[in-house]
Amino acid sequence: MTYTYFDHNATTPVDDAVFEAMLPYFKKEFGNASSRHVLGMAARRAVNEAREQVAGAVGVQPSQVIFTSGGSEANNLFIQGAAGYLKPGRIIVSSVEHPCVMRTAQELARNAYAKWNLRRLAVDGLGRVDLADVDSAMLEQQPGQRQSALVSAMLANNETGVIQDVGAIAEKARACGAWVHTDAVQAFGKIPVDFASLKVHAITLSAHKIYGPKGAAALIMDKRMSLKPLIYGGGHENGLRSGTENVPAIVGFGVACGLAKTRVAESGARLLAMRERLEQGLIGMGAVIFGRGAPRLPNTCYFALPGIEGDTLVVRLDKAGFAVASGAACSSVNPGRSHVLEAMGVDPMLTRCAVRISLGSSNSMAQVEKFLKALGKVTEELRRMSMMTV
Amino acid sequence: MTYTYFDHNATTPVDDAVFEAMLPYFKKEFGNASSRHVLGMAARRAVNEAREQVAGAVGVQPSQVIFTSGGSEANNLFIQGAAGYLKPGRIIVSSVEHPCVMRTAQELARNAYAKWNLRRLAVDGLGRVDLADVDSAMLEQQPGQRQSALVSAMLANNETGVIQDVGAIAEKARACGAWVHTDAVQAFGKIPVDFASLKVHAITLSAHKIYGPKGAAALIMDKRMSLKPLIYGGGHENGLRSGTENVPAIVGFGVACGLAKTRVAESGARLLAMRERLEQGLIGMGAVIFGRGAPRLPNTCYFALPGIEGDTLVVRLDKAGFAVASGAACSSVNPGRSHVLEAMGVDPMLTRCAVRISLGSSNSMAQVEKFLKALGKVTEELRRMSMMTV
Repeated sequence: MTYTYFDHNATTPVDDAVFEAMLPYFKKEFGNASSRHVLGMAARRAVNEAREQVAGAVGVQPSQVIFTSGGSEANNLFIQGAAGYLKPGRIIVSSVEHPCVMRTAQELARNAYAKWNLRRLAVDGLGRVDLADVDSAMLEQQPGQRQSALVSAMLANNETGVIQDVGAIAEKARACGAWVHTDAVQAFGKIPVDFASLKVHAITLSAHKIYGPKGAAALIMDKRMSLKPLIYGGGHENGLRSGTENVPAIVGFGVACGLAKTRVAESGARLLAMRERLEQGLIGMGAVIFGRGAPRLPNTCYFALPGIEGDTLVVRLDKAGFAVASGAACSSVNPGRSHVLEAMGVDPMLTRCAVRISLGSSNSMAQVEKFLKALGKVTEELRRMSMMTV
Repeated sequence: MTYTYFDHNATTPVDDAVFEAMLPYFKKEFGNASSRHVLGMAARRAVNEAREQVAGAVGVQPSQVIFTSGGSEANNLFIQGAAGYLKPGRIIVSSVEHPCVMRTAQELARNAYAKWNLRRLAVDGLGRVDLADVDSAMLEQQPGQRQSALVSAMLANNETGVIQDVGAIAEKARACGAWVHTDAVQAFGKIPVDFASLKVHAITLSAHKIYGPKGAAALIMDKRMSLKPLIYGGGHENGLRSGTENVPAIVGFGVACGLAKTRVAESGARLLAMRERLEQGLIGMGAVIFGRGAPRLPNTCYFALPGIEGDTLVVRLDKAGFAVASGAACSSVNPGRSHVLEAMGVDPMLTRCAVRISLGSSNSMAQVEKFLKALGKVTEELRRMSMMTV
């Protein structure tokens, strides 16, 4: 049976060119980038080149790139790192953030010694951050007080694919002296991401969502900002992230960043055409498409077929040869209702039916057509079964 | 020119069998271990199998293994994680710890909100933790107070290779109710490491020091201990370390752990014979061998040729085809005097001459002989040059 991968927002296969670039660094050029002999210096050069590639992909200087082991670590580094540097104040996040932003913010609000006030930004029914609520949140500061404030609003949501107007959020937040961050992990490689245009102080990028390897990511930061490290030690990454550099993964991340720029330019229309066909078919089957009408990533379709549980559908489709997700893979270890759909005000009964399809470079229109047929068959079976049990 | 790698304490090449095991997980079995489709489940099974391999290598249950991105992260997780869970008390570390333990401990002592008292354990001239000082440190608690205490003492030192009597330290510390941790990163794969015999609550292991990949490590912990996570998010690793699992690196770590057990049993005598020959030659040239006389890792030789700067020697030997280190590679980004030799009371003039050779599986007696010849030539040149400049 052929198997079709429709779960690119969870992770992606490593691109051939990325893999080839990584290969020498496992067994041959295996040096520790901190060593001063030729093997160490070769590793250092490779890390530096990757730093330039990552920086180039989002229009910053290489010195603004802090490599981390993953997107979760980078998001934690911004939130905990800025909070550790500033006096406790307000942490303001959108209500549809990934758990690695949301739970880190919640943790600041729970800190017994340096308690931050957590404020969630409301989203509308399509999952867009309510800009009027950003204004309200910024005004909630005690008059006369100049409290420190951290704002984090993701560029594109991992479940819905909805793209936020981060530039507008950042302008409002900056006007009040806040430090602003955006988790661009899902957006990067799918839409153009430019550091300056986003007007934020820091963004998070990750390799394994853009056909790079797991184990490499970056926090890109405005050099005028200071952070307290999350991991102390040998002083790597300009003292902000200690630990022996994962050279092959960092090299792969660099190459993947170069490829991502071309991919965004070339594949956007192709992905969009596939998704249009997909959603047309889904709507024909009575599906609700979440976030439809809002600007979205071209590859993401988050839908529900009322009455059919998402989890059940994922298992059935898997058996039929299609990998899809019932929610964010990242929180699948803690199954439960999607906090994203909850924040959007979606009926809890419908939330249970949510399924995410995230297209990628290996997908074709033929696969979409096949999928729609398979889905039709699976839903028919499931509906028949549920009728029998009534 | 052939190039000989004598810097295995800095990092090691990935073993062929380890690399083969990792390969499928980059492009084929690339799933996110949290995904519920076949690709996700295959990744989850691979992570689980690696968890069993790591656990088996040190005699614990798989549920005691918390995967991290590296040894520095694991050491930070224990120290910051335990400190975050307990009431501020005393953090007691040996004075020869790796920077990722020492600086993390220093950071606790600098915390503006929850200040810990830092106590360094003295070492003797051979670099062994002074057990009488452990007794003193444990007694320094305010009478009548039951303060929380964290103790971290490395199993083997990265620079000298000196092995500590962690079991004895742990017994003394436990008697006072302390939580005890050992950084076993350098010891693991070179001498037998058994969790129960060490009598500690937690140990740190790392893949890239045992012919595994960079990007995978573990904190092994007593399940009766609780930690505050360092990285919050999707709740991976039993809620203690969020972030998409680096599947290929974790798989490689598992396989490397299996190989390490055999390697320890088989290669100890071979490494020791090579080191004996090496040190005999070095002593003949007037070298001082640090820690000689104390129990040491069989692969590590840390020496100084009085009057010849370590940094200069590293560069000259590199040109002659030998990779050695002038100190711990992990802190080479921050050059400076070795805090290890300083703690041992070594004359600062001699400290500047320190060079570390760390042997590994690819090394042979012939390479040792060649090295001694090359070193003789290099030192003769350097001594002649310094005479000319006088």
